[in-house]
Amino acid sequence: MDRFTAHHSRSSAQRAMNRCRELSETPYSDIPDGLFRPFLGPAHTITSERVTSWMQDAGLSVRRDAIGTLIGRYEGTQPDAPALLIGSHIDSVRNGGAFDGMLGVLLAIECVSALHSNNQHLPYAIEIAAFGDEEGSRFPQSMLGSRMLSGKSVGSVAEIQDQDGVTLQEALKGVGLDIAYLESARRSPHEFLGYLELHIEQGPILDKEGLSVAAVEAIVGIRRFHVILKGEAGHAGTVPMEMRRDALAAASEIVLGIEAYANQSEGQLRATVGKSEAFPGAINIIPGRVAFTVELRSADHSGLDCSVLNVTSLIEAICAKRNISATIFDRQDFEPALCDTRLTTLLEDCIETAGHPRKRLVSGAGHDAMMMCDWIPTTMLFIRSPGGISHHPAETVELKDVAAAFDVMMTFVSSLDARRVRPEGEMQ
Amino acid sequence: MDRFTAHHSRSSAQRAMNRCRELSETPYSDIPDGLFRPFLGPAHTITSERVTSWMQDAGLSVRRDAIGTLIGRYEGTQPDAPALLIGSHIDSVRNGGAFDGMLGVLLAIECVSALHSNNQHLPYAIEIAAFGDEEGSRFPQSMLGSRMLSGKSVGSVAEIQDQDGVTLQEALKGVGLDIAYLESARRSPHEFLGYLELHIEQGPILDKEGLSVAAVEAIVGIRRFHVILKGEAGHAGTVPMEMRRDALAAASEIVLGIEAYANQSEGQLRATVGKSEAFPGAINIIPGRVAFTVELRSADHSGLDCSVLNVTSLIEAICAKRNISATIFDRQDFEPALCDTRLTTLLEDCIETAGHPRKRLVSGAGHDAMMMCDWIPTTMLFIRSPGGISHHPAETVELKDVAAAFDVMMTFVSSLDARRVRPEGEMQ
Repeated sequence: MDRFTAHHSRSSAQRAMNRCRELSETPYSDIPDGLFRPFLGPAHTITSERVTSWMQDAGLSVRRDAIGTLIGRYEGTQPDAPALLIGSHIDSVRNGGAFDGMLGVLLAIECVSALHSNNQHLPYAIEIAAFGDEEGSRFPQSMLGSRMLSGKSVGSVAEIQDQDGVTLQEALKGVGLDIAYLESARRSPHEFLGYLELHIEQGPILDKEGLSVAAVEAIVGIRRFHVILKGEAGHAGTVPMEMRRDALAAASEIVLGIEAYANQSEGQLRATVGKSEAFPGAINIIPGRVAFTVELRSADHSGLDCSVLNVTSLIEAICAKRNISATIFDRQDFEPALCDTRLTTLLEDCIETAGHPRKRLVSGAGHDAMMMCDWIPTTMLFIRSPGGISHHPAETVELKDVAAAFDVMMTFVSSLDARRVRPEGEMQ
Repeated sequence: MDRFTAHHSRSSAQRAMNRCRELSETPYSDIPDGLFRPFLGPAHTITSERVTSWMQDAGLSVRRDAIGTLIGRYEGTQPDAPALLIGSHIDSVRNGGAFDGMLGVLLAIECVSALHSNNQHLPYAIEIAAFGDEEGSRFPQSMLGSRMLSGKSVGSVAEIQDQDGVTLQEALKGVGLDIAYLESARRSPHEFLGYLELHIEQGPILDKEGLSVAAVEAIVGIRRFHVILKGEAGHAGTVPMEMRRDALAAASEIVLGIEAYANQSEGQLRATVGKSEAFPGAINIIPGRVAFTVELRSADHSGLDCSVLNVTSLIEAICAKRNISATIFDRQDFEPALCDTRLTTLLEDCIETAGHPRKRLVSGAGHDAMMMCDWIPTTMLFIRSPGGISHHPAETVELKDVAAAFDVMMTFVSSLDARRVRPEGEMQ
């Protein structure tokens, strides 16, 4: 397959960006000012219809699976060969940005459209998955589309409810889907050669280093927990400093301790206290209670568990010193997901072939690719986020970076078969 | 006048305590569970009626001034001599304790009752003031009773509103008072020999030192301000530690800096960050903004202003280092109030005479006495607060401490004239 001209890349990139912008407003948003497109809401339905028609225009045959994921297929020359799955999500957080998720889906359509307009078919089919739920902004579960497709256990999802008490079963019924057929969304890993996801970085590293794109070698695991510190509330005027059991002072020491601990990790660990509130919260009362959260992220599985132990010890030591009690609860664990070494190296080669510096990153944010990593060979391509801004109306992308991503993707899909990423022996 | 027997003191103390308990429930509270008696509410009215009848039983003639303060008068043998004013407040905070304020009023009534039952009259009259608003728990002004009586400017109080939009003028009308006569509540300082207030300590010092009572030499001044720190919100997974502008980390460093600064003051300064909340407040978002309050209390006027400068410098230095912006606003200043040296020394002498160790304290909390200090010679007697607990349903007192306070008060009223606290020359 010929390399695409710079002009071709730029016009494909521009069209994908324009479509992202178009889909960031009503009727493709469920709120009047800004973008909010939760799973199975009105905006999701009308967006699915629009994306379906673009997929069809690009030469894909389109169906909707039992969890509402749009799946477009562009056949290859070898009918029985495993397909390359390219995907991302079309839902958004509340007041989200236009490009998070959506850009990956629309660039995949551009890729197929370019092949289709040249009447080219690769040896393998391309399937494009437009997942309806990655953000988890409606139900207390995220990544429902990729979770179902990859056959992950999702427990009794039928009864999970959104904040208005609508169950997933009812929400699916509302868009004409029957939860009884949910299992039909599950695919076999043997159907796929691998999974590729293009996504904006949502962080500042590429922007700071002046790079357009990077291959993603892993997605961090996460440890989250909530903490409540209890000291003793008291009158700000009558209790001498040395007799206080100030829960906020203890929390402050913990926040700085966690920050210092992560700073010492040389980039291996990111630690955040995101939520913190002192109670009763009056200007003249010593805080008797503070509620805060801790989140630790690392691509290193054993390092993560070690960091939980260290942060817990730090909390206990500071509380013991200050005569404060600490309760740690609602711990959530998400394991790190490692991308396929061969696919990621191939993607990095393609970045170089397309004329950009080789670059690998660890993704600090979760993506549908997390569901794929242990199921089929998976890799991701990150696109520069100007200012690192995401999950915000100011989220944007630049044409040169999106065009670079398009080039890398075209190079990748044309080089994939030659490298035999998934030898026959591994398919059994 | 003879010293009262221990038996007499204990029965007077017991009755005052019983009455405090009786007045801590409906109908003397405006909430069903616990005590809330805001200024000019139904509970305040019915409580005023009950206190009036107890004052009358004790031999006092009672009137209500234009701001709703109950004033009972027990005549002295010299009709034109200035009176001793003894007062405290009968309102409460929401979910307050039974003894805060009320105990001072009921012990003053016991004092007069003891004189009256012996048919004793001192050379001077005793006036007991039961102020209806000290806590400021209804209107955005506190100490309205003592403020009016001492002729302090209160601005255009007629239009101040409670949280339901009821003006002070309307609230006064509701209990049969006319705001047009408000100035009539103002008294002349020449009418008074001095002011004495008995109050629970509301702090832990006497409890910790095993003492029943202490004389109060000053009431702290207060500096209060609000702070908003602005950094940059960001994704907890994608922003490397070294690129963060975490407003909560900056706030935490400030909280610890303020604590350390107050700890170095050797008891001269109490500093509190009472309110603190991080925004947007999600487990996976780096806090971009933190709102918190700072309160500094000290009896040393110039020390207070110096501490504001030092804390402000500390905030600025930490924010500069972390590339965070700080806005300081809504500053409120309350000046320290110094008690009268001669009266306070007399009170300490009386503590010793009554068989207790001499002890002086600085009050960290505000009291009606603050309004009196610069107006007439003023002193206060603190009574031990078990556990230092106040503004809470668990607030309590012990009989031996209340009896000690009663003894000290009886000794004080009988020794006052002999010492000529307010020589004629000073009265002009």
